[in-house]
Amino acid sequence: MGSTPIGSTDGPRDTYVAGRRSLAHVSTDRPSARLPSGFADARAEDVLARQALVDTVVGVYRLHGFEALETPALEYLDALGKHLPDEDAPDEGVFALRDDDDQWIALRYDLTAPLARFVAQAGQHLVRPFRRYQVGPVWRREKPGPGRFRQFTQCDFDTVGSASVGVDAEVCAVLSAALEALGIGPGEYVVRVNDRRVLTGVLHRAGIADARAQLTVLRAVDKLDRLGPDAVAELLGEGRTDASGDRTPGAGLAPAQVDAVLGFVRSGGGSRADVIGRLDALVGDDDVGRSGVDELARMAELLDASGLGDDRVVFDPTVVRGLAYYTGPVFEAELTAEIRDEKGRVRAIGSVAGGGRYDDLVERFTGEKVPACGASIGVDRLLAAQRLLAGEAAVPRGPVVVTVMDRDRLGDYQAMVAELRAAGIAAELYPDERSFKAQMKYADRRRSPAAVIAGSQEFEAGEVQVKDLALGEELAKGIADRDEWRTGQPAQRSVPRSGLVEAVAAIVGRPAPGRGGG
Amino acid sequence: MGSTPIGSTDGPRDTYVAGRRSLAHVSTDRPSARLPSGFADARAEDVLARQALVDTVVGVYRLHGFEALETPALEYLDALGKHLPDEDAPDEGVFALRDDDDQWIALRYDLTAPLARFVAQAGQHLVRPFRRYQVGPVWRREKPGPGRFRQFTQCDFDTVGSASVGVDAEVCAVLSAALEALGIGPGEYVVRVNDRRVLTGVLHRAGIADARAQLTVLRAVDKLDRLGPDAVAELLGEGRTDASGDRTPGAGLAPAQVDAVLGFVRSGGGSRADVIGRLDALVGDDDVGRSGVDELARMAELLDASGLGDDRVVFDPTVVRGLAYYTGPVFEAELTAEIRDEKGRVRAIGSVAGGGRYDDLVERFTGEKVPACGASIGVDRLLAAQRLLAGEAAVPRGPVVVTVMDRDRLGDYQAMVAELRAAGIAAELYPDERSFKAQMKYADRRRSPAAVIAGSQEFEAGEVQVKDLALGEELAKGIADRDEWRTGQPAQRSVPRSGLVEAVAAIVGRPAPGRGGG
Repeated sequence: MGSTPIGSTDGPRDTYVAGRRSLAHVSTDRPSARLPSGFADARAEDVLARQALVDTVVGVYRLHGFEALETPALEYLDALGKHLPDEDAPDEGVFALRDDDDQWIALRYDLTAPLARFVAQAGQHLVRPFRRYQVGPVWRREKPGPGRFRQFTQCDFDTVGSASVGVDAEVCAVLSAALEALGIGPGEYVVRVNDRRVLTGVLHRAGIADARAQLTVLRAVDKLDRLGPDAVAELLGEGRTDASGDRTPGAGLAPAQVDAVLGFVRSGGGSRADVIGRLDALVGDDDVGRSGVDELARMAELLDASGLGDDRVVFDPTVVRGLAYYTGPVFEAELTAEIRDEKGRVRAIGSVAGGGRYDDLVERFTGEKVPACGASIGVDRLLAAQRLLAGEAAVPRGPVVVTVMDRDRLGDYQAMVAELRAAGIAAELYPDERSFKAQMKYADRRRSPAAVIAGSQEFEAGEVQVKDLALGEELAKGIADRDEWRTGQPAQRSVPRSGLVEAVAAIVGRPAPGRGGG
Repeated sequence: MGSTPIGSTDGPRDTYVAGRRSLAHVSTDRPSARLPSGFADARAEDVLARQALVDTVVGVYRLHGFEALETPALEYLDALGKHLPDEDAPDEGVFALRDDDDQWIALRYDLTAPLARFVAQAGQHLVRPFRRYQVGPVWRREKPGPGRFRQFTQCDFDTVGSASVGVDAEVCAVLSAALEALGIGPGEYVVRVNDRRVLTGVLHRAGIADARAQLTVLRAVDKLDRLGPDAVAELLGEGRTDASGDRTPGAGLAPAQVDAVLGFVRSGGGSRADVIGRLDALVGDDDVGRSGVDELARMAELLDASGLGDDRVVFDPTVVRGLAYYTGPVFEAELTAEIRDEKGRVRAIGSVAGGGRYDDLVERFTGEKVPACGASIGVDRLLAAQRLLAGEAAVPRGPVVVTVMDRDRLGDYQAMVAELRAAGIAAELYPDERSFKAQMKYADRRRSPAAVIAGSQEFEAGEVQVKDLALGEELAKGIADRDEWRTGQPAQRSVPRSGLVEAVAAIVGRPAPGRGGG
């Protein structure tokens, strides 16, 4: 029974239904509390940091005129179709299953394929150009590894229905604006641009016209960063034997062809005008190559007019990833800062966003050619980069804790909590009958900014005790001056019951100190 | 090949990999652009309305001291386990598949089961009571129907690790505060409370001790709303033949037992004190029943102290859903407004949130009893209710559109767009070479508040034309007074180029009119 595939119409449904009947199967041995590999929980500090990042990025998208769209997580597998971004790795999979009608459905692996399906489905009812953003998780069924997850968040923007070079230039502008809105300044990032057609032109001129041979060349060029130009030259030619003795067969290009490819790869560096000059010479009179160079030249004009200089957007022929997938310009945004990994090695942070022009978007559904161009910011990768650059995020302060000294006074404590909340101060009542010490330890572990304390003595005097836990922390660590304690800002003091909110607000308004050492 | 189950280790992977190889399978006939049934896209107005609703609710949760948690969409199926809320319907399924390690994984069907897994996994490292909120989609593999979706958003809050009645009362307070923060006032909603133990006590006293018989009673009582008390009495006794002649077998209770159950079901109405008085008499000296009534009595005290009167929170013995699943009090928040459906029939909107106390949360993983209590707000149902009450949401205004009259001036147009964005005004450049009329139609269909127009004449004069599209709409419909047009607030006017931002800001600041009739 356990091997009956889910969704198979001849299998008993209760093998996988998590309802009453299936309980019999699991009640004898307890399930272990764990997640499938490649998935992770996010605690408050991560959820809030991600939300803040997404809010900032979406704000920039909206400012540029993109509107929201949300598609569901599951789609028909054939509708997701061929939009896997990396055709180089055909076993990158999706999480798929058969629906009750026996058709394959799958979790989306990006936000582009669902956009294509949406645009094709909406047809002529949709205002074009359609400019949408979408934020959401995507799922990849691939081998998880350290820092490599099978669910992650993407933040996409695309313009569908316009072939204008203005749209291409705008992708650079939006990526630049989004990163700068996140506090990443010019010089700390760079948007790299390449064009599919330029390389096609170079390959044409070198006599490499076959699509399969072109793909082999792309794969070799993609290894430039890792292996260097000499190894790439070997891969383009006769093949290569690496240090371990493993042999990779070569593309079998003639030496002149290898030189042409390497010439293209090496044509980057310097200003956009410099690169265009070099590419212009490389493509010569090849029509496709020329259309690519012309596009880059027009994009350069628009970027100049927008004040996006060579310090923000560069033309870089080594940007290869996705070239087989996109039909025109491709974009990659990279953080340039170097960081040290856990072993102290210097590493580049690398790409945090990518995109390009893909004009076959809707065609596979309807046959209608619909030009489209956009990019995707990898929220999790960007967050991880920010963490590496700025250090761990501070654990957010918890709510103010109203301690319970006398269970018969629950109503009075509740009134205090309600007053604090009415003033916009997050507050909670400690719910259980525990010692005062246990309650204060709880407040401490939740990083509460303040605790409110009232026992019979305070109720009789019409007072409450308010304890500043952040200041208490600082005093305990010797960060704050103990004199402060004596001069009107003590860590704990009595205030009239009517002054509770004011006293707590004064404490909560204080800037929270960084993450504690403990 | 097509029938090989996904994830089966002996099946070829390229049957489902959406990469290069699988293209051969789909290239001959085009996939149709459609969604699996029970799934839907959300356009901008819905995305923004949902986001606003979630932000408001989360604000209330945070104010009450709940912290954020996010768990992934996929979990091990055995970890999701028995927490399907409705044990009454064993064929309510989940979307499940085998992972690469051959274990079953599934999309979560609620946010409670992942919370249980998280708490069990975190063990003693977690500060308790653990008070978390989580917002996210959940998936149910059930028959979709009109307004019945297989993906929807839940917004949960739970307190794990406290058995205090204060936590139970707080669930009512949080539900009430969340609905009121959304503008739903007292009298427009009600939080209904029942307690599992009171009914158990009543059944004990009536001699109905068997768990299976108790479940049959619960199922019958759950039909009270739909069938009325006479039909329920039949279902509890000899069985019932409905109008179509279909026979449902009865629970076979003796007449005195049927009376006891109906007595319980009818014990609602009036103030909380009234209900407690009636329940007190019904449970007599049964221990379990008494503990339930005592809990309700203490909850009533705390609700009174919090100012949550009988107009907001009522005790209602007919709230049955989930009684088999929960271990103590159960909650349901309901909008009381009646609406008319598409056929003009008066309907109750019904439940928009539900929850309760479930003390077996962590036990099934670790054997440790961990008390827990919380509730879930159904975001989509609440949104749908708000729509029904308030009418369709206004389609949000699009960005300001800068039209392109002269392609050679692209840099100048870009500068205008950049200035508007720098002032925080969403703006975009019309990207394509289309007629002025086509560009204005686009701005109109995007509901742009304003269009900016500059041709050679304007450039020469150092001016731009700014057109107020909302006012233009009103003028066209006769909503606005045409005299306004003559007295300084025309729908279109020339301003100096340097006054562009000021002129557009003045227009964007105007309140947008409601959704147009067109």
